[in-house]
Amino acid sequence: MVPDLQTIEAAASRIEPYIHHTPVLTSSYLNSLTGAEIFLKCENFQKVGAFKSRGACNAVFSLPEEDIQRGVCTHSSGNHAQALARAAALRNCKAYIVMPETAPLVKVDAVKGYGGIITFCKPTLAAREETLRHVMEKTGATEIHPYNDYRIIAGQATAALELHRSVKSLDIIMSPVGGGGLLSGTALATKYISPATRVLAAEPKGADDAYRSMIARQIVPSIDPVTIADGLLTSLGTLTFPIILENVEKIILVSEETIVNAMRLFWERMKIIIEPSSAVPVGAILDNPAVFRNKKVGVIISGGNVNLSKLPWQI
Amino acid sequence: MVPDLQTIEAAASRIEPYIHHTPVLTSSYLNSLTGAEIFLKCENFQKVGAFKSRGACNAVFSLPEEDIQRGVCTHSSGNHAQALARAAALRNCKAYIVMPETAPLVKVDAVKGYGGIITFCKPTLAAREETLRHVMEKTGATEIHPYNDYRIIAGQATAALELHRSVKSLDIIMSPVGGGGLLSGTALATKYISPATRVLAAEPKGADDAYRSMIARQIVPSIDPVTIADGLLTSLGTLTFPIILENVEKIILVSEETIVNAMRLFWERMKIIIEPSSAVPVGAILDNPAVFRNKKVGVIISGGNVNLSKLPWQI
Repeated sequence: MVPDLQTIEAAASRIEPYIHHTPVLTSSYLNSLTGAEIFLKCENFQKVGAFKSRGACNAVFSLPEEDIQRGVCTHSSGNHAQALARAAALRNCKAYIVMPETAPLVKVDAVKGYGGIITFCKPTLAAREETLRHVMEKTGATEIHPYNDYRIIAGQATAALELHRSVKSLDIIMSPVGGGGLLSGTALATKYISPATRVLAAEPKGADDAYRSMIARQIVPSIDPVTIADGLLTSLGTLTFPIILENVEKIILVSEETIVNAMRLFWERMKIIIEPSSAVPVGAILDNPAVFRNKKVGVIISGGNVNLSKLPWQI
Repeated sequence: MVPDLQTIEAAASRIEPYIHHTPVLTSSYLNSLTGAEIFLKCENFQKVGAFKSRGACNAVFSLPEEDIQRGVCTHSSGNHAQALARAAALRNCKAYIVMPETAPLVKVDAVKGYGGIITFCKPTLAAREETLRHVMEKTGATEIHPYNDYRIIAGQATAALELHRSVKSLDIIMSPVGGGGLLSGTALATKYISPATRVLAAEPKGADDAYRSMIARQIVPSIDPVTIADGLLTSLGTLTFPIILENVEKIILVSEETIVNAMRLFWERMKIIIEPSSAVPVGAILDNPAVFRNKKVGVIISGGNVNLSKLPWQI
């Protein structure tokens, strides 16, 4: 069932001991640049460096004890893998993570660092799903999907819940959109807590499946997406899409150049590290000043995990 | 006269409208790594990205109106140049900045952005001083030295003042040392507010003039220093040195490798940008766990200005 307010509040209480209540930052420079009043919900300072800790903790701490005995599993090479491994370790539960054999060593090490048990597979969606099915058959572990799961959606919704409670009467709230876990959660929390706030999303031009899905009013899968915002490569899910279709006003597309510029602006001016996915909604604001001028805008800064040895402005 | 508590408190009131009361951050990761309880006074979030805004504002806003008419001047290619240009602009005063012709374009542009009037010179200390003298003769501007000035020292002292007032009973307080403005201010504020707190400093091995000066009990100039911590290349001043000699327990030397590792640790784990100079005291803690274990340690994180196109871990 689509999470209601009570479910989201229960998620917030459940995960509270395990996550950070992240700060909301403002920047006079960013405000003067955009003419908007921007409130940044800094999930880059979240545990594991991303909002994914919220959903993962909510899912793992929702499970009955008999499921915990058999462990949890997922396929992910990104922040969800680390977040799930960490959440499982906190509940003394095994986490089986299927990762493509091409995953960067730093991500593999991070999952191992949290005690995750990794199974490598070929870097295709088919191989990932096949391998995960095999792991599940062997272990009886419960799959925790990175976004297409109401427990995950309710967990991610707690970021917007906190933002609305610390900043009242936002005109607009924004998040990036990949699989739609963060965006659908943000949209639901906003509908319940601050229904007058408009919900917008931002997506890389090079991975515009959510944009096209909104127009087609059905899920248009992401085919060969190319973007530096590697957290946003996935397609919408069957659970996230209907929530987004009903509650999100529009999706703004952002070029790679704008994403890199917005990211660098944060690093240089605000001295905080955000990952490319987080720069996408900021880029949307920079590119569309007329939409945001004189508005109170909340932005979920999704994470801060970046490979420092491979930056987009390196020469 | 060496600033007393009243002078430092007056500086704090004077600059309060123009600077940030920066946050004090903690990191459970950093604490677990060092066994210490570390409190980071984040001057990387300060105006102009460095503590230098404190001293520059205090100096400029201390000047009588007739001096303001003729402007202020300095030679600097670093954070002080920007901080002085900004402080002067806030008081509607001209800032004449002598910069070496080799200064990075980004720094030149930053000074210009604050309305600073730049005179370029050859990149030697003699040429800088000669050019500055020429500017002073022509304009009648008042020199605001980057550190060897009691108004600057009193301004820099306000960072430690704020830190002691938000975190009581620190066992140790640390700052990096270059010309000694920040360190002498930190030592004075600590002596007045929290005299039981030990004052330590950290310096790059490749620019160890303060370390050698402490041993020799006289200023040993910095000759051909080589370090990534480009804010710490300068020698101690005749005003900063006696304060440091009297009030600083010791200076810990830190290798380049440790500086880079400490800087990267902040970027990767804490998601905040610190400049190499700020990483020096953190590196000292990482290298000397026995000194800091089970201690409450305050660290002045001096700034966050980094050339993102030229990072020490680039390949």
